[in-house]
Amino acid sequence: MIVDCAHYRDGRRQHEGRMDPAEAAAICRFEAGFVWLGMVEPSPEELSDVQEVFGLHELAVEDAQSFHLRPKVEQYEGGIYFVVLRTARYVDEREEVDFGEISLFIGPGFVITARQGAASDLHPARLRLESRPQLLEQGPASVLWAILDQVVDDYAPVVEGLERDIEEVERLVFSGSSAPTHRIYLLRREVTDFWRAVHPLLGAANAITQGGVLPRGDILRPYFRDVDDHLKLVNDEIVAQRDLLSTILQANMAVVSVEQNDVVRRISAWAAIITVPTFIASFYGMNFHNMPELQRSWGYPSVVALMVLSALALWAGFKRARWL
Amino acid sequence: MIVDCAHYRDGRRQHEGRMDPAEAAAICRFEAGFVWLGMVEPSPEELSDVQEVFGLHELAVEDAQSFHLRPKVEQYEGGIYFVVLRTARYVDEREEVDFGEISLFIGPGFVITARQGAASDLHPARLRLESRPQLLEQGPASVLWAILDQVVDDYAPVVEGLERDIEEVERLVFSGSSAPTHRIYLLRREVTDFWRAVHPLLGAANAITQGGVLPRGDILRPYFRDVDDHLKLVNDEIVAQRDLLSTILQANMAVVSVEQNDVVRRISAWAAIITVPTFIASFYGMNFHNMPELQRSWGYPSVVALMVLSALALWAGFKRARWL
Amino acid sequence: MIVDCAHYRDGRRQHEGRMDPAEAAAICRFEAGFVWLGMVEPSPEELSDVQEVFGLHELAVEDAQSFHLRPKVEQYEGGIYFVVLRTARYVDEREEVDFGEISLFIGPGFVITARQGAASDLHPARLRLESRPQLLEQGPASVLWAILDQVVDDYAPVVEGLERDIEEVERLVFSGSSAPTHRIYLLRREVTDFWRAVHPLLGAANAITQGGVLPRGDILRPYFRDVDDHLKLVNDEIVAQRDLLSTILQANMAVVSVEQNDVVRRISAWAAIITVPTFIASFYGMNFHNMPELQRSWGYPSVVALMVLSALALWAGFKRARWL
Amino acid sequence: MIVDCAHYRDGRRQHEGRMDPAEAAAICRFEAGFVWLGMVEPSPEELSDVQEVFGLHELAVEDAQSFHLRPKVEQYEGGIYFVVLRTARYVDEREEVDFGEISLFIGPGFVITARQGAASDLHPARLRLESRPQLLEQGPASVLWAILDQVVDDYAPVVEGLERDIEEVERLVFSGSSAPTHRIYLLRREVTDFWRAVHPLLGAANAITQGGVLPRGDILRPYFRDVDDHLKLVNDEIVAQRDLLSTILQANMAVVSVEQNDVVRRISAWAAIITVPTFIASFYGMNFHNMPELQRSWGYPSVVALMVLSALALWAGFKRARWL
Amino acid sequence: MIVDCAHYRDGRRQHEGRMDPAEAAAICRFEAGFVWLGMVEPSPEELSDVQEVFGLHELAVEDAQSFHLRPKVEQYEGGIYFVVLRTARYVDEREEVDFGEISLFIGPGFVITARQGAASDLHPARLRLESRPQLLEQGPASVLWAILDQVVDDYAPVVEGLERDIEEVERLVFSGSSAPTHRIYLLRREVTDFWRAVHPLLGAANAITQGGVLPRGDILRPYFRDVDDHLKLVNDEIVAQRDLLSTILQANMAVVSVEQNDVVRRISAWAAIITVPTFIASFYGMNFHNMPELQRSWGYPSVVALMVLSALALWAGFKRARWL
Repeated sequence: MIVDCAHYRDGRRQHEGRMDPAEAAAICRFEAGFVWLGMVEPSPEELSDVQEVFGLHELAVEDAQSFHLRPKVEQYEGGIYFVVLRTARYVDEREEVDFGEISLFIGPGFVITARQGAASDLHPARLRLESRPQLLEQGPASVLWAILDQVVDDYAPVVEGLERDIEEVERLVFSGSSAPTHRIYLLRREVTDFWRAVHPLLGAANAITQGGVLPRGDILRPYFRDVDDHLKLVNDEIVAQRDLLSTILQANMAVVSVEQNDVVRRISAWAAIITVPTFIASFYGMNFHNMPELQRSWGYPSVVALMVLSALALWAGFKRARWL
Repeated sequence: MIVDCAHYRDGRRQHEGRMDPAEAAAICRFEAGFVWLGMVEPSPEELSDVQEVFGLHELAVEDAQSFHLRPKVEQYEGGIYFVVLRTARYVDEREEVDFGEISLFIGPGFVITARQGAASDLHPARLRLESRPQLLEQGPASVLWAILDQVVDDYAPVVEGLERDIEEVERLVFSGSSAPTHRIYLLRREVTDFWRAVHPLLGAANAITQGGVLPRGDILRPYFRDVDDHLKLVNDEIVAQRDLLSTILQANMAVVSVEQNDVVRRISAWAAIITVPTFIASFYGMNFHNMPELQRSWGYPSVVALMVLSALALWAGFKRARWL
Repeated sequence: MIVDCAHYRDGRRQHEGRMDPAEAAAICRFEAGFVWLGMVEPSPEELSDVQEVFGLHELAVEDAQSFHLRPKVEQYEGGIYFVVLRTARYVDEREEVDFGEISLFIGPGFVITARQGAASDLHPARLRLESRPQLLEQGPASVLWAILDQVVDDYAPVVEGLERDIEEVERLVFSGSSAPTHRIYLLRREVTDFWRAVHPLLGAANAITQGGVLPRGDILRPYFRDVDDHLKLVNDEIVAQRDLLSTILQANMAVVSVEQNDVVRRISAWAAIITVPTFIASFYGMNFHNMPELQRSWGYPSVVALMVLSALALWAGFKRARWL
Repeated sequence: MIVDCAHYRDGRRQHEGRMDPAEAAAICRFEAGFVWLGMVEPSPEELSDVQEVFGLHELAVEDAQSFHLRPKVEQYEGGIYFVVLRTARYVDEREEVDFGEISLFIGPGFVITARQGAASDLHPARLRLESRPQLLEQGPASVLWAILDQVVDDYAPVVEGLERDIEEVERLVFSGSSAPTHRIYLLRREVTDFWRAVHPLLGAANAITQGGVLPRGDILRPYFRDVDDHLKLVNDEIVAQRDLLSTILQANMAVVSVEQNDVVRRISAWAAIITVPTFIASFYGMNFHNMPELQRSWGYPSVVALMVLSALALWAGFKRARWL
Repeated sequence: MIVDCAHYRDGRRQHEGRMDPAEAAAICRFEAGFVWLGMVEPSPEELSDVQEVFGLHELAVEDAQSFHLRPKVEQYEGGIYFVVLRTARYVDEREEVDFGEISLFIGPGFVITARQGAASDLHPARLRLESRPQLLEQGPASVLWAILDQVVDDYAPVVEGLERDIEEVERLVFSGSSAPTHRIYLLRREVTDFWRAVHPLLGAANAITQGGVLPRGDILRPYFRDVDDHLKLVNDEIVAQRDLLSTILQANMAVVSVEQNDVVRRISAWAAIITVPTFIASFYGMNFHNMPELQRSWGYPSVVALMVLSALALWAGFKRARWL
């Protein structure tokens, strides 16, 4: 579905409402400024229409339709760049990260964007860019910056969501209430998936700032570097979270072992406390004829006292030895 | 066995049926276009015939006969390239990955392919290429692309098969029904073998796109880059699977430990529940003459009640402490 | 808050007290020497004032206001460098590392510093630099050196504090008194955070010594290299501490397991010592009519002796086998 | 001991039998072709003789006498190359890898080889080379190739021997018959030693193909590359074996834990099966006067039946819960 | 303390006894050859004297006074190089590695060495160098070689000492006599410290052979390369030891687990052997009136026989199942 299509010139949008792709292609060929065509979950027909009128490469269009690609920047002939970005959104209820994709075709005089899956909404990026004419007049590269900036900014809540979950898991592990191995494992898996969406973008972002994507570029360069910086920060945090989750898994094992030690001790102590009186009872259950204690009237109460005392002594001893 | 041998010119196959290698060699020397000779499990004689008529290097021919080689791209004198690819096929019943090999000799005017083991069938690649004359007329490099594309596409079901197995193992580990250490280990081994088949191809594919394998190449370049992209994606997934399986092995340990903790607690609780009434029974088995309870008529029923009550109290206590 | 603002020329401070930023900007444009403007937790208004009068880039000013950035060195047009440093302070009571940030704008004729969070106090750095006119007269780069030197020197007590904690944890683990998994984990987390503050600075410091930050620089170069050296040393130590803490976590597991082994053995030994006499007592509790020992007068004392002897023999045996 | 010394010219050996080193040195100085002098465990005197007549560097000669060096390629003045190779042999009885060393001095007109320890026999390499005059006439570099080829080929049986052992260990671990930690550890150690012999050779082999060791070399280059390929394959396999053995060590732990879980459950089940009848027996050992069951004639048989039934019921329950 | 100071010229020491630093500085300025000034634990005053007369940089002198630095090579203006080496000595009693430091200032016409801590004695290096005039006449670089050679040679006994300890620990772990977790941990720590002393020297040694430290150097180059080789060997061994100790720690865990399994089985077997006769005894302690066995004269002996037989049968069964 085509959601917006506008002509920008001298940093200003030339009209309200959206144009037809064919019209836009004509404008971008014969007029100054550039055209930004935005699509969401485009159908194969829409894409092949756009491919024809803008002269896009078949492979790039194929990639824009497929999903689960790595972030990348590719140059095609005719000065057309094809950029794939992976977006991420944290879903709190499911404790999962949903991924989406944004494909960009950037050529002389046009930018075509196609969103798929749980992709960031690009409308705010468009508005933000439209409010900064001095960037917008740099041409299509400014659109790439605006989208990249939004995508990377949208990584931050994902990092925070994962961080919150990690802290919750930490608390669970060390409170001893339960050993959430499954949850640690799932979090580790989410973080790894997220890392796979973010990590290759580092190389792609580098290709943008170092390579020839930026046309005149000097004004935009610091803005791309700024996005690159945020991206590095996000990457650092994810790497640290991976490391942390591996350590938690190990710590979890240690905590379980310590607790098992504890349980074994506690059980053994109680077993000893009951075993000694049981032995005494068995002892006086022997059938010897001349066990003088049995006939004495003080026999029974003193044996009961002995049992109680031995149990108390053991209990106190274990208490002191911290087994109880 | 020679399975096909055809002359291609201006993007079109020049004839039905297959030629003789000697004839093909003559054509590739004296006519425009190129020859594609396809062999499956070639005998040493067939290979030495081909070596002679096409002037291949003895070392490359030796490699084409041996198995279990790493993927590679090598340049020999006379502008001949020798490429080894490792193919993979997932066998669901055995939960194993079978490997095959495709050796390619690419020279001026000819492509010779030799398949071994569980290698991908190259016929679809040939048909697909024949249906795209604009690529086919680029010469032998187009054949390399078509085969590379097929080999890498055939990795995808392997990745999926392994993914399915990993998910099954995950379920087993966290359902607590059994601890499938052996299966995790075997999967880890399969993934490592697969990784060893795929990983060196990354460097080889890079050598193709960067190096001088592509003759005029500008049209084919994006196609090779596209294959390279898929390869990187496959490699990323395998690396993630390796990491995942290591984590599962650790998580498995933790789950086993937690379960052991549980078992020990449950057993201890039941032992306590039966030990206390046993003590009471031993107690009233003592032979003291003056144990007044023994003579009373309410003695026996009240002791039985005591036993039942103590057992119930313990059971309730353990239930509340979540040991049962 | 602006804490100091001075004009330096020929290695000497030109006046006591602090100037107005506007005045300073005028001086740095029209007079020789340079101006050093120091701010602590600057308000957005202060920063935008400074931005205007010194012509700083909006992105750099934004970064100076945000927190939790990575250390970096960036060049902006007009020969202005923007440097972010992460400072660290060890808080003994909480066994935690607090982080702060220092942002520097270094341009022709001015240095602007902004501190945030638990940042190092820069006053000593200023005094130390003022006492070395031969460095000070090298211009703004000397201020960068002085601050970098102080920041890196302030890492040393953090390393030592963590080292002390690690040694304490080692002692705890191997004394067997308790298994401080939680503390090891928290320390590991602190060390990782610290590493994330220090590690990217290595690249930034390299960019300074290799890149064009140093204007004439030859005299300052060894001083920057000296700081770089200390930084490498700190980085080495942190990396070693991380490795050590991972090893401690594993050793901790082993110690817990060994101890559990010990506990199980000890408990079993005591259980055996009491089980054997209990069996003997049960034995003579049997109701057979013709158990001759029961009638004999020596029966009872000799069975008691047998119980004591068997218990002693077991005790001695376990003692020798080191189970007790 | 000098085992062979021959003069080669135009790809052919010039004579049977072996020459004197002094004679060989004279030939290599004044005649075309080159001399190959082979020594086994040379004495210091032999080496110093050879050093003198061929003008070798004292450091290279020292290295040829010492053992336990890393593989390397070094250039000395006068166009002399000094190469150290580590050979390996798998000793099946001891499940160990024995190492040897071959030092080569390659100069204009001569090759001197010295074997030490469990080094590969070089005689087959010499024969194989003599049968390929077109390579032999390339001069001393062809000897380096022949020896390198043999050394690397001799790695293959070591890899296979280790592979066999690893598979045996796998079987042991997962059959549960015993937990061969010690054997896993020793294998891991052998593999690491082997890796240390092979890994640095990768760099050295690269130095040969890239560097100036090959004089005119174009013909030999593919042959060296072929050796390099095999070496990479061997290295890949060793790295995979190391990884595998680490995983086995972990899997071993998991298997032991699972088995312990099993043992604890089985023991507890049997304990329960015997504890319940024991409780019943104790119950009817109580001395209450009015326990009506005791006087009834059906008392005894029905209690025995109760014991048997309770034991059977428990046994069946545990069987169903898979504890037995 | 200044321990020696000599003037070398044409490869020969010019005089016995030691000169005054000021005198030495004069010689190195006005005469051919060079001066070697050796100090041990120099006082700040001695160092500042030397700094003045030889014109050393303040930062290098500061570094020479401080301790716990990383090995490094630094160039200062005036062609002066500052080198820091870390020496190591293995102390057998404490099973620890002691570290020392040697700082070298190498300038045109002079070498100044300062030893600190457990540093290698440099006297043998001086004597060895004096006995090789052809190296000594190469100037100050020969002194650097002599010292580097000695320092690296002195690493060998440390490696051997650690190797011995590791083998001892291996024996302990696999003999099952005790689980020396603490000792493994301490060894791991020592090896890591040692690695930190040796590892950065690799880069420094490379800087020497590649960089401009060697003045004319061609004769000395192989000698430096020789040292570099030994250093790489030492580094390889340390890395292997680290890896080995990590593996031992894991193997230790496995051994402890296996042993625990064993203990649990053994204990359970003995418990079963005594529990069954106890049950029998309890059985015949029941007070039923009509238990015919109790009245029979063969009752008692046959029950005793039953007890013995059941115990023996269990013992034999457990023996066969390898639980005992």
